[in-house]
Amino acid sequence: MIRVGIVGASGYTGVELARIVTRHPEVELTLATSRQYDGRSLAEVFPNLRGQLDIKCENVAPEKLAERADLFFLAVPHQTAMAYVPGLIEAGKKVVDLSADFRLRDPVVYEEWYQPHSAVEYLKEAVYGLPELYRQQITGCRLVANPGCYPTSIILGLAPLLQKGLIEPGTIVADSKSGTSGAGRKAGTATLFCEVADGFRAYKVGEHRHTPEIEQEVSRLCGKSVKITFIPHLLPISRGILSTVYATLSRDINQEEVEAVYADFYGNEFFVRVLRDSALPATQYVRGSNFCDIGFKVDNRTGRIIVLSAIDNIVKGAAGQAVQNMNLLCGFAENLGLRHIPLFP
Amino acid sequence: MIRVGIVGASGYTGVELARIVTRHPEVELTLATSRQYDGRSLAEVFPNLRGQLDIKCENVAPEKLAERADLFFLAVPHQTAMAYVPGLIEAGKKVVDLSADFRLRDPVVYEEWYQPHSAVEYLKEAVYGLPELYRQQITGCRLVANPGCYPTSIILGLAPLLQKGLIEPGTIVADSKSGTSGAGRKAGTATLFCEVADGFRAYKVGEHRHTPEIEQEVSRLCGKSVKITFIPHLLPISRGILSTVYATLSRDINQEEVEAVYADFYGNEFFVRVLRDSALPATQYVRGSNFCDIGFKVDNRTGRIIVLSAIDNIVKGAAGQAVQNMNLLCGFAENLGLRHIPLFP
Amino acid sequence: MIRVGIVGASGYTGVELARIVTRHPEVELTLATSRQYDGRSLAEVFPNLRGQLDIKCENVAPEKLAERADLFFLAVPHQTAMAYVPGLIEAGKKVVDLSADFRLRDPVVYEEWYQPHSAVEYLKEAVYGLPELYRQQITGCRLVANPGCYPTSIILGLAPLLQKGLIEPGTIVADSKSGTSGAGRKAGTATLFCEVADGFRAYKVGEHRHTPEIEQEVSRLCGKSVKITFIPHLLPISRGILSTVYATLSRDINQEEVEAVYADFYGNEFFVRVLRDSALPATQYVRGSNFCDIGFKVDNRTGRIIVLSAIDNIVKGAAGQAVQNMNLLCGFAENLGLRHIPLFP
Amino acid sequence: MIRVGIVGASGYTGVELARIVTRHPEVELTLATSRQYDGRSLAEVFPNLRGQLDIKCENVAPEKLAERADLFFLAVPHQTAMAYVPGLIEAGKKVVDLSADFRLRDPVVYEEWYQPHSAVEYLKEAVYGLPELYRQQITGCRLVANPGCYPTSIILGLAPLLQKGLIEPGTIVADSKSGTSGAGRKAGTATLFCEVADGFRAYKVGEHRHTPEIEQEVSRLCGKSVKITFIPHLLPISRGILSTVYATLSRDINQEEVEAVYADFYGNEFFVRVLRDSALPATQYVRGSNFCDIGFKVDNRTGRIIVLSAIDNIVKGAAGQAVQNMNLLCGFAENLGLRHIPLFP
Repeated sequence: MIRVGIVGASGYTGVELARIVTRHPEVELTLATSRQYDGRSLAEVFPNLRGQLDIKCENVAPEKLAERADLFFLAVPHQTAMAYVPGLIEAGKKVVDLSADFRLRDPVVYEEWYQPHSAVEYLKEAVYGLPELYRQQITGCRLVANPGCYPTSIILGLAPLLQKGLIEPGTIVADSKSGTSGAGRKAGTATLFCEVADGFRAYKVGEHRHTPEIEQEVSRLCGKSVKITFIPHLLPISRGILSTVYATLSRDINQEEVEAVYADFYGNEFFVRVLRDSALPATQYVRGSNFCDIGFKVDNRTGRIIVLSAIDNIVKGAAGQAVQNMNLLCGFAENLGLRHIPLFP
Repeated sequence: MIRVGIVGASGYTGVELARIVTRHPEVELTLATSRQYDGRSLAEVFPNLRGQLDIKCENVAPEKLAERADLFFLAVPHQTAMAYVPGLIEAGKKVVDLSADFRLRDPVVYEEWYQPHSAVEYLKEAVYGLPELYRQQITGCRLVANPGCYPTSIILGLAPLLQKGLIEPGTIVADSKSGTSGAGRKAGTATLFCEVADGFRAYKVGEHRHTPEIEQEVSRLCGKSVKITFIPHLLPISRGILSTVYATLSRDINQEEVEAVYADFYGNEFFVRVLRDSALPATQYVRGSNFCDIGFKVDNRTGRIIVLSAIDNIVKGAAGQAVQNMNLLCGFAENLGLRHIPLFP
Repeated sequence: MIRVGIVGASGYTGVELARIVTRHPEVELTLATSRQYDGRSLAEVFPNLRGQLDIKCENVAPEKLAERADLFFLAVPHQTAMAYVPGLIEAGKKVVDLSADFRLRDPVVYEEWYQPHSAVEYLKEAVYGLPELYRQQITGCRLVANPGCYPTSIILGLAPLLQKGLIEPGTIVADSKSGTSGAGRKAGTATLFCEVADGFRAYKVGEHRHTPEIEQEVSRLCGKSVKITFIPHLLPISRGILSTVYATLSRDINQEEVEAVYADFYGNEFFVRVLRDSALPATQYVRGSNFCDIGFKVDNRTGRIIVLSAIDNIVKGAAGQAVQNMNLLCGFAENLGLRHIPLFP
Repeated sequence: MIRVGIVGASGYTGVELARIVTRHPEVELTLATSRQYDGRSLAEVFPNLRGQLDIKCENVAPEKLAERADLFFLAVPHQTAMAYVPGLIEAGKKVVDLSADFRLRDPVVYEEWYQPHSAVEYLKEAVYGLPELYRQQITGCRLVANPGCYPTSIILGLAPLLQKGLIEPGTIVADSKSGTSGAGRKAGTATLFCEVADGFRAYKVGEHRHTPEIEQEVSRLCGKSVKITFIPHLLPISRGILSTVYATLSRDINQEEVEAVYADFYGNEFFVRVLRDSALPATQYVRGSNFCDIGFKVDNRTGRIIVLSAIDNIVKGAAGQAVQNMNLLCGFAENLGLRHIPLFP
């Protein structure tokens, strides 16, 4: 049994990691840190876990962390994560960091969108944890930068088109809609039930920090530096992201040919479900699962293609993908403990 | 008192017309037709109306309609509406048609997206009922084609930019999200609570019938024939549309200049609220009202502008705008009976 | 024009008072206090109000309040309200207090459920602001204790039965369900969207502070001291309370006889809608309105009656009822500015 | 591998059975019947299942059913189920009937609340499928009558109190609230999103057909014939039932003593989670799981106890409990394939 620890267990990503890890047959949860809930049972904080695990939240000093587990999930905010990484890696531990701190390869870009980086030397070895694109690199590494939720949906949606050069990268517009769990569990007026329910809005228009992460991967896939437009919206649901991505086709191509490109690209992927016959994804069909459902439509009237990509933002967009990365790091079957069928309705 | 009739009172547009008209000081509801609920009190069908009006649903033969009111709201499906219009107009009545039958000026386009048109001769005189753009024409006409809900949000959002030539019309992408009331009140599996709640999806990707209506008005505003991309999505809320519209700017312009353009264009409009200081609209702030809230963001990184436009799809997107048109047709103050402040939360 | 002030304008009751008062033809909003939003436009805090009023939030010292308006709505927490009342009353102002501070006639009961009372001398003159029961007393008073939301729904539901002695008061069980706006707008984890949405729970079982308020009025109506069971629940909706109240019938009586009792009791009330023919109320049919819809069912199998009572907790349960009381205090028509038809859907 | 068939796979219970059974390690889904979707892939009808199973819906003649599986789940309406049972049992098959047809032991009661019964001879051998109460009988039987969703929550909540004689059975009032999936997937106006969302109502007050089922089990547990009051309500959520049950205590007893009674009664049950320290259950903490969470509060003021019981109506209230019964019938571990941790948020 591998011992795993969750650093930052009191958020929605933390409880989801606990939910998945608790039923994973090859690992044991040995640590759940939380300053706020220090000393309280994790199942008391998150009563869905009641009776399923027996672990208390702890406020552990950074230097005491390493001895408590073999692999660590960092479910803390950016800037906090970079403070933990060097110590854990130097102690010989594996780390899956769910924050943004090691996702951007270029520290200049990181510092432009975030704040100064205190562990630049680890940027080089960190692997971007999108297994469908970086499986081999993840397998042998020590530090995985688990992708952002929006980037996961958008990059998986676009990768086949970009790799085959089928779209003009400069025309990409990604209109994404996320469930409110993406905003975290911190108390605040803006995410109160009455502010969100029965409503809909955009936020951080043109300035969301997932933009450079998407651009980095899009640029790599098409082989040149690209700027994209990415606008996030807040859905009155708890879980789920649907990204609707628009781009101009670079050549005449029909629906069936595009379907073949996607089928070929994702043929063997357990977690990517390519839709056929112009079927469209929906967040409710991936709820609670690690699947990414992808549909698309060639629009001959305008010469554009519309790609639709749905994930559960807490699973494939965070905790599930982190466990998928853990499975790769530990040599387990990639879908071990992650075969949940989506809950519908 | 003007006598008004609602033809097709059993849908969500019908009940909303009844709600507004019942409190309107200058009109009296004298007719509410419904085949399905013939003989039943309208307030029994829609218990929110309980005690507020005393009218029964009737199944009235078309030739008996005209005598029952002075002005008619047609809240019936397209194709049905065109069968009523000639008789009512010939009988000297005013008509506000909420269907799509008289929105498209070109019968060829209409027949391409819908079905054969049986009252082509009325297409010429019908006025597109967007008062902010066609106020004068509406005032003197007999037949108003009340705009679609999506087109209302998108056209009001884009009009200032198009009129001033600030965007490249061929680059317009309109990503719209609508509450489920837009799908009507007909029983069907796809709009059951459990299919919609806690979920999100796109539908009719690249083929929604509001596309030619948007293109007609965009083309008129910019003075040349334009094709746009319009993708509707279904929100798990009852009321509200938010359209996020993307376009490439045709010249360098900053946020403040764009704000001035909108303020100038909509300066005196009661129902259009232009947001300042990069504030963003949200459907929950227009709920139950006839307002259209418009925000925008110049994105210097990509040379695009993002326009966000929020309405209540049943009010400004249907019944409220119809009453606004009625006010113009009857010479009342344009906002009479329509000054509801949005309900929040 | 009467000048009115809202003390505590930054909560959901505050914004709803502003929404109603702004369109009221006989009053003018001259003051909106908020410590948190001091200096900010109320319409910026609550964008639904955008463009409809021009007032800034202010942090006003208590001794400066009185000069700013003729009538005050206190939309502040209990204990805070009692600090404002003496000064305002002594300055000759009218006060509608929406807190619990003056609802309980017996200071001993108040102090048992709340904390020490600092203005006991005003308890005697305060009138419990349920106009359907205390209309005359309200008309001539200076200080109205606006009822709690739950008590409003339960007392209006039970009053006819209690007055006629048709039920055994000791058997009353009130199972109430409230929308989340009842929990206020204070940031906190428990009312975050993700904690409330798609879920349901009871809270404060057997210890909610509305219990003594309900017992006081039930006891008065039946003429003897009664203890009841009252359990509140949290609904994943913003607005609305449905109370399901159970009691054992004190004699054989059938559905039609009970209907006659209710019709007789509430015959002339504008805001109480008694349902006939075993129809059942629902929160969605009173949304945004000051109506209280009441239905009931005699259950011959068990000798019990079940009364169902629906209100919008922010309107009839708070701001609307406060304006109804204001209308009585000021000699206006009782429903002036309050005739909103419920918004459905 | 045991071959299992789902008769009536096109409803919400059907898809949930498919979700659970597909991942069950000891059974294979060999049949999914549906008249409506005959010939279509089940994963096309329910896209959450996409890629997880490969089975087509079939319209199978009753006489051809038996050969297709070893155990059958009947997820069809009452009256339809009783037509299938004799043939399947006579062919030597095991049957878990999720309809009401074999739940009531007394055919007279059945016919009073439903319609004539055509397979009365099977009522005697059918076992009421609440494993926590009837484990032994289920293990050896051929026909399990899977309990109703409301009765499951109420009976599990009351059983310890009734068995110990701690409450007056005649005073029981059960106020239950259910998610909308309980209303099924049949198209109808009443369960459209816009009719249910953002609202709340009671229905079938005093006449719901689960009443005699609850009374049968309550009567058995307390050893005398009892009538109860049961009122169901419709929640604007998809999954979940919370029952709030009121009863007068038959003797002085405190919270800790009651806790001990429950802990003792349910000590070894995997699926019943008894809450301690006056904690309260909520539907969101059992979502997607087979758990029943039970809390309670002794109210000394009134001499009553309030029991709160939460389940996922599609899992413990239907499909999950059916699989639990299947596990007993087949000699598998009772929780095999059913250890899903609830999904929160």
